[in-house]
Amino acid sequence: MPSVTNARVIFNDIPTGYPEPGKTTVYDESTTIDLDAVPLNGGVLVKTLFLSVDPFLRGMMRDPGIDSYSPAFKIGEPIYGYGVARVLRSEIAGVEAGSYVEGIISFQQYNILPNLAPDAFHIIDKKHKVPLSYYLGALGMPGKTAFMGWRKFSQAKEGETAFVTTGAGPVGSFVIQLAKLAGLKVIASAGSEDKVAFMRSVGADVAFNYKTTNTLEILRKEGPIDVYWDHVGGETLDAALETARVGGRFIECGMITQYNNPGPETFKNIVNIMTKSLSVHGFIVLRELDDKLREEFYNVVPELVSSGNIQYREEIHDGLESAGNVFLAVQKGLNKAKAVIRVAEDV
Amino acid sequence: MPSVTNARVIFNDIPTGYPEPGKTTVYDESTTIDLDAVPLNGGVLVKTLFLSVDPFLRGMMRDPGIDSYSPAFKIGEPIYGYGVARVLRSEIAGVEAGSYVEGIISFQQYNILPNLAPDAFHIIDKKHKVPLSYYLGALGMPGKTAFMGWRKFSQAKEGETAFVTTGAGPVGSFVIQLAKLAGLKVIASAGSEDKVAFMRSVGADVAFNYKTTNTLEILRKEGPIDVYWDHVGGETLDAALETARVGGRFIECGMITQYNNPGPETFKNIVNIMTKSLSVHGFIVLRELDDKLREEFYNVVPELVSSGNIQYREEIHDGLESAGNVFLAVQKGLNKAKAVIRVAEDV
Repeated sequence: MPSVTNARVIFNDIPTGYPEPGKTTVYDESTTIDLDAVPLNGGVLVKTLFLSVDPFLRGMMRDPGIDSYSPAFKIGEPIYGYGVARVLRSEIAGVEAGSYVEGIISFQQYNILPNLAPDAFHIIDKKHKVPLSYYLGALGMPGKTAFMGWRKFSQAKEGETAFVTTGAGPVGSFVIQLAKLAGLKVIASAGSEDKVAFMRSVGADVAFNYKTTNTLEILRKEGPIDVYWDHVGGETLDAALETARVGGRFIECGMITQYNNPGPETFKNIVNIMTKSLSVHGFIVLRELDDKLREEFYNVVPELVSSGNIQYREEIHDGLESAGNVFLAVQKGLNKAKAVIRVAEDV
Repeated sequence: MPSVTNARVIFNDIPTGYPEPGKTTVYDESTTIDLDAVPLNGGVLVKTLFLSVDPFLRGMMRDPGIDSYSPAFKIGEPIYGYGVARVLRSEIAGVEAGSYVEGIISFQQYNILPNLAPDAFHIIDKKHKVPLSYYLGALGMPGKTAFMGWRKFSQAKEGETAFVTTGAGPVGSFVIQLAKLAGLKVIASAGSEDKVAFMRSVGADVAFNYKTTNTLEILRKEGPIDVYWDHVGGETLDAALETARVGGRFIECGMITQYNNPGPETFKNIVNIMTKSLSVHGFIVLRELDDKLREEFYNVVPELVSSGNIQYREEIHDGLESAGNVFLAVQKGLNKAKAVIRVAEDV
């Protein structure tokens, strides 16, 4: 069989603010691969079906001299992130051609993976009747983030109040539903009317558009809050600190205000951490929680999703060439649901 | 027996910045009490021996319309705080005249206490050979704050590094010693050379004067830090966030930068709570920890102190009339050790 194109998305330049498709990332079709002959060296050859476009990828588009919780992408090489792929050939015992895997792969059509370490790859169990792309969302890293962070830090009690930011995203919408299952009143924010409607549809008691409604006023009226799920930081975090109840738990899952405009921020209510006896927990799910809670996650969550007890929505974009634009849209919060790129049909 | 003077320290005016002796508090000798005849109504009459001058009293000198974790003092009435007193007469079964109690009492020479609820008063066990005034420090609220906060939140492991602010104070110096007993490297800061020498004498590995040495530079050199004991907030907290190790625990015991100058503050490193998976714990010892850990505290700490395994120092000022000046000195950090007022000799 002759070689075929192995299109890629190359990291080309470090963005200073928002990423720029065609400049900071470049779609490239210059590479080919011989699917039958390429040596696997004990690994597997996989065909990429879906790729996930996550906000955290922005943090990896940085000067490698700057330390962070994630590695920096290398200029001239493909970016990488979560993907679902089908195994075409395998030299790993127990992994058959035709099986499906989820894990970190390069943004290219075909990848050779040297191993499938269980802490890095999940072999998808097809008995659960859920679309493969869900393994990038409710059944993937976002779902783990929501389920494991809530499980570990919320200490939620029936009748309490939770405030969930970015509540229409794959993590936030999952958290809203976990909070409702636990019997909490849920306040949730997002940046468009469509997202507000979606948050209501998954159970949020108070859903609002933070672009047209003042967050602090809503929290003063609907709080005090016992659990704060933060994806935002900055002023929103400060408002949550102001309206927290004594003994409140803050779950610091993200601070998107700091990703594209890092720098000093003003807070009025940091002192409330002390005066209100708050506990503020930062976490990176794969660093602290995944090894302890992975088994529980795969035992519980696929059933919650396939039964419809946890609802999930995604936005599928076709073609690897769309990656740069989708990535920019996600950074700007323009996507309406979990953004996924369908690189190939599963045929 | 004729009536005797019952001198008091009256809360006279709400301070806007630092308290002003003679204006915000007034020493008053206009009241008398008949020690033999005054009705107890089922309570006890006690003679004040020692009163504690604590930083947190400033927060109670406020407009009562402002909500806080502590009540506001009432204009025209005596201020109150922790004291040690001898029981002169008692109508409470099991509390004999001649016994000693520690708890919240008014800043006056004699007090009638309606009850001695065990969560508000401690009957001092004289079998431990420690000075009575220590029940305002290492064996009182500061000692409880240090012991219980450390016990609950530090998760300290041998070989880790702790940073303790206000390390010469009754809480900070106790924390330094607990950290050393647990096998940690201890960095400690205070505001004078005398305090630095004291912190070294109780075991701090790196002790520095934050007024003459840059905190951030010290932490960059001696960190990263696993446990941060905060009494300061503001810039110092921001420096600790910058130099924390992944998984660090922050114990928010106080934020003195906010007490006399409340208002917005600038932080550069709040995002590190997330990126470094920090846990930040606020607490008020009597609100969350005392009921759970009181028994352990009185079982363990008197022996630690009387044996010299925990060292403690205090600064005794004579006479209730000194209260206003001592209070101001404590707010300015001019005291060299736990500030205590000896109201009367124990005769």
